[in-house]
Amino acid sequence: MIVVMRSGFAEDELSAVVAHIESVGLRASITRGAEQAIVGVIGVPITEQVQEALEAMPGVEKVLRVSKRYKLASRDFHPMPTVITVAPEHGAAVQIGGEAIVVMAGPCSVESEAGFLQAARQARAAGATLLRGGAFKPRTSPYEFRGLREEGLEILALARQETGLPIITEVMTPADVPLVARYADVLQIGARNSQNYLLLEAVGAAGKPVMLKRGMAMTAEEWLLAAEYVLASGCPDVMLCERGIRTFETATRNTLDLSMVPLIKKLSHLPVVIDPSHGTGKADLVPAMALAAVAAGADALIIEMHPNPDQALSDGAQSLDPATFADLMPRLDLVAQAVGRSIARAPIPSAAD
Amino acid sequence: MIVVMRSGFAEDELSAVVAHIESVGLRASITRGAEQAIVGVIGVPITEQVQEALEAMPGVEKVLRVSKRYKLASRDFHPMPTVITVAPEHGAAVQIGGEAIVVMAGPCSVESEAGFLQAARQARAAGATLLRGGAFKPRTSPYEFRGLREEGLEILALARQETGLPIITEVMTPADVPLVARYADVLQIGARNSQNYLLLEAVGAAGKPVMLKRGMAMTAEEWLLAAEYVLASGCPDVMLCERGIRTFETATRNTLDLSMVPLIKKLSHLPVVIDPSHGTGKADLVPAMALAAVAAGADALIIEMHPNPDQALSDGAQSLDPATFADLMPRLDLVAQAVGRSIARAPIPSAAD
Amino acid sequence: MIVVMRSGFAEDELSAVVAHIESVGLRASITRGAEQAIVGVIGVPITEQVQEALEAMPGVEKVLRVSKRYKLASRDFHPMPTVITVAPEHGAAVQIGGEAIVVMAGPCSVESEAGFLQAARQARAAGATLLRGGAFKPRTSPYEFRGLREEGLEILALARQETGLPIITEVMTPADVPLVARYADVLQIGARNSQNYLLLEAVGAAGKPVMLKRGMAMTAEEWLLAAEYVLASGCPDVMLCERGIRTFETATRNTLDLSMVPLIKKLSHLPVVIDPSHGTGKADLVPAMALAAVAAGADALIIEMHPNPDQALSDGAQSLDPATFADLMPRLDLVAQAVGRSIARAPIPSAAD
Amino acid sequence: MIVVMRSGFAEDELSAVVAHIESVGLRASITRGAEQAIVGVIGVPITEQVQEALEAMPGVEKVLRVSKRYKLASRDFHPMPTVITVAPEHGAAVQIGGEAIVVMAGPCSVESEAGFLQAARQARAAGATLLRGGAFKPRTSPYEFRGLREEGLEILALARQETGLPIITEVMTPADVPLVARYADVLQIGARNSQNYLLLEAVGAAGKPVMLKRGMAMTAEEWLLAAEYVLASGCPDVMLCERGIRTFETATRNTLDLSMVPLIKKLSHLPVVIDPSHGTGKADLVPAMALAAVAAGADALIIEMHPNPDQALSDGAQSLDPATFADLMPRLDLVAQAVGRSIARAPIPSAAD
Repeated sequence: MIVVMRSGFAEDELSAVVAHIESVGLRASITRGAEQAIVGVIGVPITEQVQEALEAMPGVEKVLRVSKRYKLASRDFHPMPTVITVAPEHGAAVQIGGEAIVVMAGPCSVESEAGFLQAARQARAAGATLLRGGAFKPRTSPYEFRGLREEGLEILALARQETGLPIITEVMTPADVPLVARYADVLQIGARNSQNYLLLEAVGAAGKPVMLKRGMAMTAEEWLLAAEYVLASGCPDVMLCERGIRTFETATRNTLDLSMVPLIKKLSHLPVVIDPSHGTGKADLVPAMALAAVAAGADALIIEMHPNPDQALSDGAQSLDPATFADLMPRLDLVAQAVGRSIARAPIPSAAD
Repeated sequence: MIVVMRSGFAEDELSAVVAHIESVGLRASITRGAEQAIVGVIGVPITEQVQEALEAMPGVEKVLRVSKRYKLASRDFHPMPTVITVAPEHGAAVQIGGEAIVVMAGPCSVESEAGFLQAARQARAAGATLLRGGAFKPRTSPYEFRGLREEGLEILALARQETGLPIITEVMTPADVPLVARYADVLQIGARNSQNYLLLEAVGAAGKPVMLKRGMAMTAEEWLLAAEYVLASGCPDVMLCERGIRTFETATRNTLDLSMVPLIKKLSHLPVVIDPSHGTGKADLVPAMALAAVAAGADALIIEMHPNPDQALSDGAQSLDPATFADLMPRLDLVAQAVGRSIARAPIPSAAD
Repeated sequence: MIVVMRSGFAEDELSAVVAHIESVGLRASITRGAEQAIVGVIGVPITEQVQEALEAMPGVEKVLRVSKRYKLASRDFHPMPTVITVAPEHGAAVQIGGEAIVVMAGPCSVESEAGFLQAARQARAAGATLLRGGAFKPRTSPYEFRGLREEGLEILALARQETGLPIITEVMTPADVPLVARYADVLQIGARNSQNYLLLEAVGAAGKPVMLKRGMAMTAEEWLLAAEYVLASGCPDVMLCERGIRTFETATRNTLDLSMVPLIKKLSHLPVVIDPSHGTGKADLVPAMALAAVAAGADALIIEMHPNPDQALSDGAQSLDPATFADLMPRLDLVAQAVGRSIARAPIPSAAD
Repeated sequence: MIVVMRSGFAEDELSAVVAHIESVGLRASITRGAEQAIVGVIGVPITEQVQEALEAMPGVEKVLRVSKRYKLASRDFHPMPTVITVAPEHGAAVQIGGEAIVVMAGPCSVESEAGFLQAARQARAAGATLLRGGAFKPRTSPYEFRGLREEGLEILALARQETGLPIITEVMTPADVPLVARYADVLQIGARNSQNYLLLEAVGAAGKPVMLKRGMAMTAEEWLLAAEYVLASGCPDVMLCERGIRTFETATRNTLDLSMVPLIKKLSHLPVVIDPSHGTGKADLVPAMALAAVAAGADALIIEMHPNPDQALSDGAQSLDPATFADLMPRLDLVAQAVGRSIARAPIPSAAD
């Protein structure tokens, strides 16, 4: 259930609403817009008596029931789109969910300091505004390269320092959340962990924005419910990343489901990110799908780019080389303008400039 | 195997190559570009001896083996993109596969003369260049509306006369091919008949362009092999229409697989059409996916539009109303320009103008 | 809607019910049990007035509405399981849907007279009661072996004559139905044609039992609706064959969905056949899945067996060799007995005995 | 690579082989049969030189390369089927993977002490040999019942004490492994955590047998690689549980892929468990699929049974009531006997007898 406050409500009216909600054993969650405020009521059961009492309080415009299984993630609960501010503390804030579309780029894994710094500079030169790179890598086989762990995080931080770009990196287990959150500007939950609920709660409490990838066989509703775990743990800054679902088609690694962009934006207020690299598994399909994602209304892209895709320790087949990535960026900008948006620009001069 | 002729080859050199191919029990298929020609060799087995003999003939630049299971449909066989000319005999030729992107529009079914003519005029006014409408409807249940049959074809012809726009309509069984081909400018094969091989051969011999929809569980390779049936039956003008595949996701009717646009264009020379209406099953997702399809490189769109979606006898939930369709067209044009193309314009003034 | 007649009703009461149904523009379909009769009412709309009038007629026990989209195929409409008698005219009747489980066996394609007769004798010797073999073969590529056509049908008839076993074979297009129905005892509709509705109507009117394979991406409801097309065309003898659906798994050719056995038998009165050969695509998985199918309650199995699987023109990888097939039969019988059934025995001595 | 020792080899020959493997920087893993031993060699790269040196050592019969991505899980590496002994320390050992098929039963969640003890007694009375019940429940929504946690584990231990039956229960995150392992006889990894690799390693090091459920979109190879994580962490006692995969079919909750039984047993030595409850999601389909699983060769079944399915806090729709479960057990036994096996009996009289 949500309580919509009247335009021009008084602060003490709002406080009274919250107090009443808590007095009957429920919890309140406040969302503020320019002149209005919405109070989400969490808990069960919410009786008609509670609803009627709230409707009668001063400053309350109306009280609505949210019938969807996800509450905090729903548009009904939070009608304005969420805009996430990444890394304000580094003086390099990037906004995701606004007019400008953010391109995150970098190699699948952090493989070495020199290699990653080279990739980071190339990504920045081409116009990326966030750096991606895996320090903890979930691998299908235990015998494959599983990341540099904390050493990888340190390299990511170094790259941030050099380029001025915030970093996004994956965390795989609750015990690693404090460590990864010390370094990362955005915490990434991978597709395989998309229903690892205790991890979702751990990142939700870590104080950093979270990017939640869709599981390979996850429905839209399950995805929003997974986001609900993060939101309900205290993190309002969740972005949802479509990275391809698993189907019978074998010519592509996954089937990138771009219909999630308009669908999720209809059902939810959370920003949507598209990963055309995992979504297709083939570098030569990435540019077309990146352009399509922008046209469909995506708020951000996350693209794998490697200085030498042939030598990548993971995901080389789906990584763009730097020249192809640099060529793609202005084409993305043209499509963004065609749909009334733009591609975000790197916020401040980097140390390397 | 394909034989690539030298630039500036002589016609009798080409004839000699064809004659040699036929003399060893194989068949030849000629594709001509501005200054070159390619001869496809069909049949098995093609021995090394045959290959060496052809390589030694005058005018031959090189001989290449096509290892894919589809031959006529492959890029190796036919490196230049196919551009299909629709309805030249009606003085209203439309080209599919060139720079300009064609938008086909109209209701799912032809329900009545007045209703379809209204839809046709609305589609034309908004800028569509082909009319769609089903006269023979495959329906999941035998108790549902199955189309007006020949009466529907006559209404389609009337709408063509009034608007000057060519028509595309479905044919469901070989026995109906001559009838439907008398009326239609493009013969449509539906998803459920995408591996109805005798129907594919019948439409391939009918002398009209063919639009082949992808089956709900059809791989890219199977789709190209189905196209191969049409091509091998004598029809060079095949366009491939992605209309969504079936996955576990239930929030959308199907999962529209836009990665087929760049994939098919890499593997094949045939134009690719996107159907965002069946691809999503929800009218409010159609505009975003239509824009995305254009950005991904689609050669045409086929969009369901109905004067009154609420009253449609079939597929109302996924049909745009005329105002939404009219609003979408200039947005498609902007995205088309952003990727270096345009939306095709109706070729001649219609009787209604 | 269905009309249940009272036990011991009079024939003229039944006639009056049918007459009333037809008098209001609807159609009647009669199903008789030992002492009862059920009249299905087909057409729309069926008003409450009609229902009340029928309830008031002599001999009528009750009138029920069937809410499912399929009517004739539903258990509500026809509570007793259907038992199909195959080939009574050949003096070698086989019953499908009763206590005894029927095993159909033979090669994927009829490749030659000698080869097929050998396979037929081997199948019979091992205990099969129906022969399978394709004369018309749907092939993914136009360049593959597509069957011997009428010559294949003649070989099938010869094998029936020699072994005394009825034959099942596929028909691919309406124009071939009269020809195939002259030879076949059961008409098979393949997975790719499972929603080729005009073919379903043609076989429904051909006067022979029909085996309808499930499409690769067909839901249970769509399958029963496809059966409804055959039933509504006049054929009461439809059996449903599960042959595997298409999923992301690549270690098997398809995913054999055995849950369709109990599900279909709950929803419908039609017999269920399992095809473990196409269902797995691997000969070494066939025996286990055949045993499982019997335990799950299947009414029949259709198994590919080839005298020399390595040399088969199609589907060799999934064909059992004769020795493995012969070894499997008594094991099937033990499982059948464990679930209170048996494996059907060949009905009469064959000419070869 | 694996080293097969000659029948009648000497212990010091085996030690020398292990010493050589370790001397070149690789690891050795010994599997012993009645008269033979196999040494798995782990690490990369394994040169030809190493292979030749091992082939020349006394007692070595042959050296084979294992080309599959999973090593410890493969049949090549460990040709004899693994038989897992559960709970020897409770004097109630149950063997999984041998001739007798184990039936695990109980409610989805442990909801209360009285309710669970009632269910446990009913399960035991009907012949189950392992108790299942969830104390930590992964739930799609954060607002659903998530289990009694440690209190649930204590109730499970009480039920074990009363019935003499070992218990299996799920663990969801590495931090809970020590706690759950103190109570559980088998640690269960759920479908959503099937690629939570750090959890797999944590349970692999916990000293208890592990049951690894297949993910909803997991291929057979990925499943065996997930098992490889557990095996490589030191736990040799891994059983694989098929619980249905996600497909387009909506009439069942999941599609139970019974072909995994023969496929996994061909590729691997690990026992296979079937979960017909989650596999179908419908109680009335469970008996048929349980019977089919036994016929297909499953080593164990895990079945949800609840004293009052209508009142279950989770999964009521797929839970058998005690009478249906009791009715099913002797039918399973008949099918087991038909395939040369039996249903395991409860090992010792329980305190309740």
